[in-house]
Amino acid sequence: MQKQITKKNERVEEVFNLFIKHIQEFLKEAKLNHEEYTNFVHWADRLGRTGELPLFADVFLETHVLKAMYTDKPGTQPSLLGPYFIEGSPELKKEPGKPYVLTQRPDEPGEVLYFKGNVSSTDGMPLANVRVEMWQNDNSGKYSAFDSDAPRYNLRGYFYTDKNGDFEVKTIVPLPYSIPDQGPTGEFLDYMDQHPMRPAHLHLMFEADGHETLITQVFFEGDKWLETDVADGVRKELITKLEDKGGHKEASLDFVMRRE
Amino acid sequence: MQKQITKKNERVEEVFNLFIKHIQEFLKEAKLNHEEYTNFVHWADRLGRTGELPLFADVFLETHVLKAMYTDKPGTQPSLLGPYFIEGSPELKKEPGKPYVLTQRPDEPGEVLYFKGNVSSTDGMPLANVRVEMWQNDNSGKYSAFDSDAPRYNLRGYFYTDKNGDFEVKTIVPLPYSIPDQGPTGEFLDYMDQHPMRPAHLHLMFEADGHETLITQVFFEGDKWLETDVADGVRKELITKLEDKGGHKEASLDFVMRRE
Repeated sequence: MQKQITKKNERVEEVFNLFIKHIQEFLKEAKLNHEEYTNFVHWADRLGRTGELPLFADVFLETHVLKAMYTDKPGTQPSLLGPYFIEGSPELKKEPGKPYVLTQRPDEPGEVLYFKGNVSSTDGMPLANVRVEMWQNDNSGKYSAFDSDAPRYNLRGYFYTDKNGDFEVKTIVPLPYSIPDQGPTGEFLDYMDQHPMRPAHLHLMFEADGHETLITQVFFEGDKWLETDVADGVRKELITKLEDKGGHKEASLDFVMRRE
Repeated sequence: MQKQITKKNERVEEVFNLFIKHIQEFLKEAKLNHEEYTNFVHWADRLGRTGELPLFADVFLETHVLKAMYTDKPGTQPSLLGPYFIEGSPELKKEPGKPYVLTQRPDEPGEVLYFKGNVSSTDGMPLANVRVEMWQNDNSGKYSAFDSDAPRYNLRGYFYTDKNGDFEVKTIVPLPYSIPDQGPTGEFLDYMDQHPMRPAHLHLMFEADGHETLITQVFFEGDKWLETDVADGVRKELITKLEDKGGHKEASLDFVMRRE
């Protein structure tokens, strides 16, 4: 235990010292003056006090953490966890031969979507019994548990891949939405001349023994916000087709998990 | 007006893009993983919600902003403004031939200090009528208006240099003190194995027509925290001697302001 604590301390020190080294280089290049620094601190204080710091970090920094970690690595690229994940989503049950149904209200508003996929390992083997957690927004563009009238776990749940690594889940088509833009994060967007929209996406988290947990998102061709996603979460290989099947839509994407 | 707003926007964009460029280099070198990122965001959220963000920034970042701006420039080196400056301090009045007296309670606890100085320009000319604002902690180590029982402007005030650029003010000797260490900033100090102490110091802000505003601090030889100041605010030329004059102390330092 003592040893672990020591290691943790050393890592914080190592990371902070590197942060300061690069911040010094940033300051040298940006020639930030004291008034600009003070303005920044006042804005950051408001960001922090309103509870928007995780929003800001996930929208503007998380993508860079992921790109630094994963670009050029094999397997499916991760995308943002984002600020809308919550713990405790329910396990979905299914009838034999039928798809899972993502937790939803009776007559959940929105277009029905059947989403399917396959999960395999970077060595090519399909992965059975992978825990797949999914969450998304509803037809009003809101995530349950965040400023929404829906039950806490609406459009959230987890399930498992079958013996071939396949899964299918019935849900609704997610919608593009605006991140909260009435607080300090919105002020920043104004300054940057950046719209607050994210393209429609499904959130997925895959957990399998012996593999790195994969947190990613699925996007849809033709979405008008793909190129300018405020959170820069889109990766080419995470875009799939939304196929029109008359009364409902279908989409699919395969996922590849990295061995640990 | 419109033009100014445009300029401000462009500057925010320029600074943020440089920030991201250097953050990317930091992430590449630090190899921050997603769990570390998430731990950081949770900690930063607590820092923000408790209102400690300005404290953290002033203790750990402000010194780097100042060093990037002023190292190798002529004139007195600035030091931290810090989180304890407040607007609205009273103007001090004085009797002819006597020093100013920094706003204080009757029988203000502490050792009496007469602090004097001279203000000149980088071209060597003494500067008359410079507005000098001063603030400091009291004998309990606290700043008025911050978790203190003292009146709001206790040990705060401003006055002007005389025709030779000289000033003298009667106050008390400031004390070393601990920055607040019971919240997220204290957690960070624990991780870094850093004590929370700042050496004793006077805060001074000088304003004169045609000159850059100078915000700095004065430290005292022999203070045990000079070398390891948690906020890294000490500069060699800002250290002076605290001379014992029996019933009181005396100290002095001269200041040189840069032409705009």
